[in-house]
Amino acid sequence: MFNPRSIAVIGASRDPRKAGYIVFRNLVENSKRLLGYKVYPINPYAKRILGVKAYPSITKIEEDVDLAVVVVPAERVPLVLEECGEKHVKVAIILSAGFSEVGNIELEEEVKHIGTKFGIRILGPNCLGVFDSYSGVDTIFLPYFKVLPDGRRLSSLPRPKRGSISLISQSGAVGVAVLDYMASEGIGISKFISYGNKVDIDETDILEYLLYDDSTRVIMMYIENIERGRRFIEVAREVSKRKPIVVLKAGRTPSGARAVLSHTAAVAGIDKIYEAAFKMCGILRVYTLEDLMDSSKALAYQPPAKGNNIAILTDGGGAGVMASDEAETLGLKLARLDEKTRQEFRKLKSSGAIVDFAITENPIDLTGSATTEMYEICLQLLLEDPNVDGVILIVLHHVPLIVDIENLVHRCSKLIKEYGKPTTVGTIGGSEMAILLRRMFNEKCIPAYTSPERACRALAQLVKYGLYLKRFS
Amino acid sequence: MFNPRSIAVIGASRDPRKAGYIVFRNLVENSKRLLGYKVYPINPYAKRILGVKAYPSITKIEEDVDLAVVVVPAERVPLVLEECGEKHVKVAIILSAGFSEVGNIELEEEVKHIGTKFGIRILGPNCLGVFDSYSGVDTIFLPYFKVLPDGRRLSSLPRPKRGSISLISQSGAVGVAVLDYMASEGIGISKFISYGNKVDIDETDILEYLLYDDSTRVIMMYIENIERGRRFIEVAREVSKRKPIVVLKAGRTPSGARAVLSHTAAVAGIDKIYEAAFKMCGILRVYTLEDLMDSSKALAYQPPAKGNNIAILTDGGGAGVMASDEAETLGLKLARLDEKTRQEFRKLKSSGAIVDFAITENPIDLTGSATTEMYEICLQLLLEDPNVDGVILIVLHHVPLIVDIENLVHRCSKLIKEYGKPTTVGTIGGSEMAILLRRMFNEKCIPAYTSPERACRALAQLVKYGLYLKRFS
Repeated sequence: MFNPRSIAVIGASRDPRKAGYIVFRNLVENSKRLLGYKVYPINPYAKRILGVKAYPSITKIEEDVDLAVVVVPAERVPLVLEECGEKHVKVAIILSAGFSEVGNIELEEEVKHIGTKFGIRILGPNCLGVFDSYSGVDTIFLPYFKVLPDGRRLSSLPRPKRGSISLISQSGAVGVAVLDYMASEGIGISKFISYGNKVDIDETDILEYLLYDDSTRVIMMYIENIERGRRFIEVAREVSKRKPIVVLKAGRTPSGARAVLSHTAAVAGIDKIYEAAFKMCGILRVYTLEDLMDSSKALAYQPPAKGNNIAILTDGGGAGVMASDEAETLGLKLARLDEKTRQEFRKLKSSGAIVDFAITENPIDLTGSATTEMYEICLQLLLEDPNVDGVILIVLHHVPLIVDIENLVHRCSKLIKEYGKPTTVGTIGGSEMAILLRRMFNEKCIPAYTSPERACRALAQLVKYGLYLKRFS
Repeated sequence: MFNPRSIAVIGASRDPRKAGYIVFRNLVENSKRLLGYKVYPINPYAKRILGVKAYPSITKIEEDVDLAVVVVPAERVPLVLEECGEKHVKVAIILSAGFSEVGNIELEEEVKHIGTKFGIRILGPNCLGVFDSYSGVDTIFLPYFKVLPDGRRLSSLPRPKRGSISLISQSGAVGVAVLDYMASEGIGISKFISYGNKVDIDETDILEYLLYDDSTRVIMMYIENIERGRRFIEVAREVSKRKPIVVLKAGRTPSGARAVLSHTAAVAGIDKIYEAAFKMCGILRVYTLEDLMDSSKALAYQPPAKGNNIAILTDGGGAGVMASDEAETLGLKLARLDEKTRQEFRKLKSSGAIVDFAITENPIDLTGSATTEMYEICLQLLLEDPNVDGVILIVLHHVPLIVDIENLVHRCSKLIKEYGKPTTVGTIGGSEMAILLRRMFNEKCIPAYTSPERACRALAQLVKYGLYLKRFS
């Protein structure tokens, strides 16, 4: 599915507005760029599409076909799937909609039956399929750009760069929206899988696949229900020991569950059972889209924490208070600094390396007099302190002496990497300085957020995952 | 304080790196631009500053001075304040730090005493003072721009445009960070007040002032403690009936309270008492910086709701589920649509105006086939429904037929204004389309957010405030 040698796009189209065109074009372009798989357009009415010879049926292709991407109207799916069977295709991604999600249950059963008969593994139907940043397989039939009536060409669904997060989404729309966010934030992806009505391949199969996928280090899931609960738990348990799984399970309230029933015709289930199951297998559950994205970024960029004692370093007292409140709410503890650290802080004050009215109890407040040097020296003390398991670094760039933020980011991130203690960054604001500051930290894999609380929640996930891993060490 | 005819900047400086320069320059420039107040630089060593005649002491100015802005070192503050007293200055904003916040309690007492003796109202010390977007009074001594070592000139603390939100902040750093955010988001401000150590003017005085300030319609507060609790409640009660107050009370946990003690030497107090007091006087309490900003934007842009029955309109089922979950968690109800509305939806389906697989139970899901026309017609039905008190409008722009977003925003916001029912917008993503979509909605005063849950939380505040107001109607 992710590394086919050859792909047939059944329903490839010459009309740029059609899904069959977008998918075929993306595959052809990525294939050229990456010197990858071969792509065959299947269309009984076209001789060539984008210069590539078209076939009236997949059965007319002489070479083997590993993967079929199906974009024909729902009622034609059984026929083309039969042909895939004759052709011994291994996997079919059925993008077409119009099955159980609109009440067409019989048609879906037929598709399922054909898959079983020929041993074709099926992803979908009613899905967006997959995006693999490494192999270039991209079946998302939504355009990168849109052109407004006034002629402006705006990015609409940029694909994220290569990275270590994989995203499994029961909702295609939520999935691509997260891709949009990741691309814009510069967060890399490994694989995206939208599995729609899951007649065959489901969340558990995908999770199991990702366990062995070396380019995936963090797994992000949006799900509305889980079909094979017992097996899911078994698999998730194994995965969690090696890679964190962050799950947004929607339909957690009665209102949400009713909405799930309308949306995917799935039974959202009793939330307490999900909660318990997730806990059992080390899944990091989040409750909002923002937390899903924030947590995954932190887990992709930073190591898990060894304990829940954290330190906060700030140049604004109020931001330190907010982070402290959030930390305690999340079950984190403000580390009691080691005697040696306290001594060092006293020395820094008496030598004038930090201002004498700086607060050197955790949260450490450098005040509006903060400089890059003060940040560096204090961050080092905190990272060195054996009582500190992780750090929330708050940088409000507005203070007078924080100007050369590139240097600040360089020095701080060097230390953070050196000590290997998880650190997240909290900033506030949308000015050019604020945006650049966050981008520079993110580029150094120090996850930066737009509020002290978000930085705190992200660190809390690194703590939670670290504590889970401890059970097995 | 906000509309002085004349201002003396005591400690005005010629050195561009100094607070005394930044404040003086901002005041002079704003005064020219707005044809406002007169500004006098006070500096015994300078003849002229920025071309304006300097005075060695405020007492040497012949004309009356309404407001003194004090930026001299802490130990010189008593002396210059005495001179302000002789000059019959009404208000002094003391920006200087180095008082009780660093243990210098005696000096602070002296300042307080001088103020009382001469009847000078004092804001501060250890504060950023005020910013008034209407009169142009701006004592924030932090620069608009910063210049990086490579020569790039980046916005660092842009001032927000004129608007209807006023911000009271016990923390200067948090205050300016919020200003940065507001400016970048295009959210307007009326007045910003940072009151620091509050030797005289405190949060209650400011709140009372804002009650009668016509340009303030929403009040946003960051506080760590309240001094005169009883009076605060009396005032807040009166204010809440006319303008919503959104409060982030930091130091709500033991860790946070300890941090408050270090930060402002204030006692954060028992949080349950604050919680009860806020509830009693209709204050909308928030727990994170993001909610503070999101709620204030919603309250500034949209009317309060008449009840807690909301409708959700989306083009992505998953986003609708997430919003439903969040709504129920916040105590909102998914409105049961009126029979007439249901009938209309059925008609829309049979006429083909909306696709027949659209979900017309609340949350309404137009699916990936959504068009601007479908959004318009369905939004109108929901706004018209007597069972619906407010709407969460979720627009995921990635779907194929949502292209002309300007038209979409225009049509939807026209309807929302026409019906006067509070509506918030949820989007996802950071692509150019996503950013433009949010900006256009925000410009039409339809508050737009980066996730379904944030849009939901914002609407919940409009509901909460609306229900509070109902008590008095």
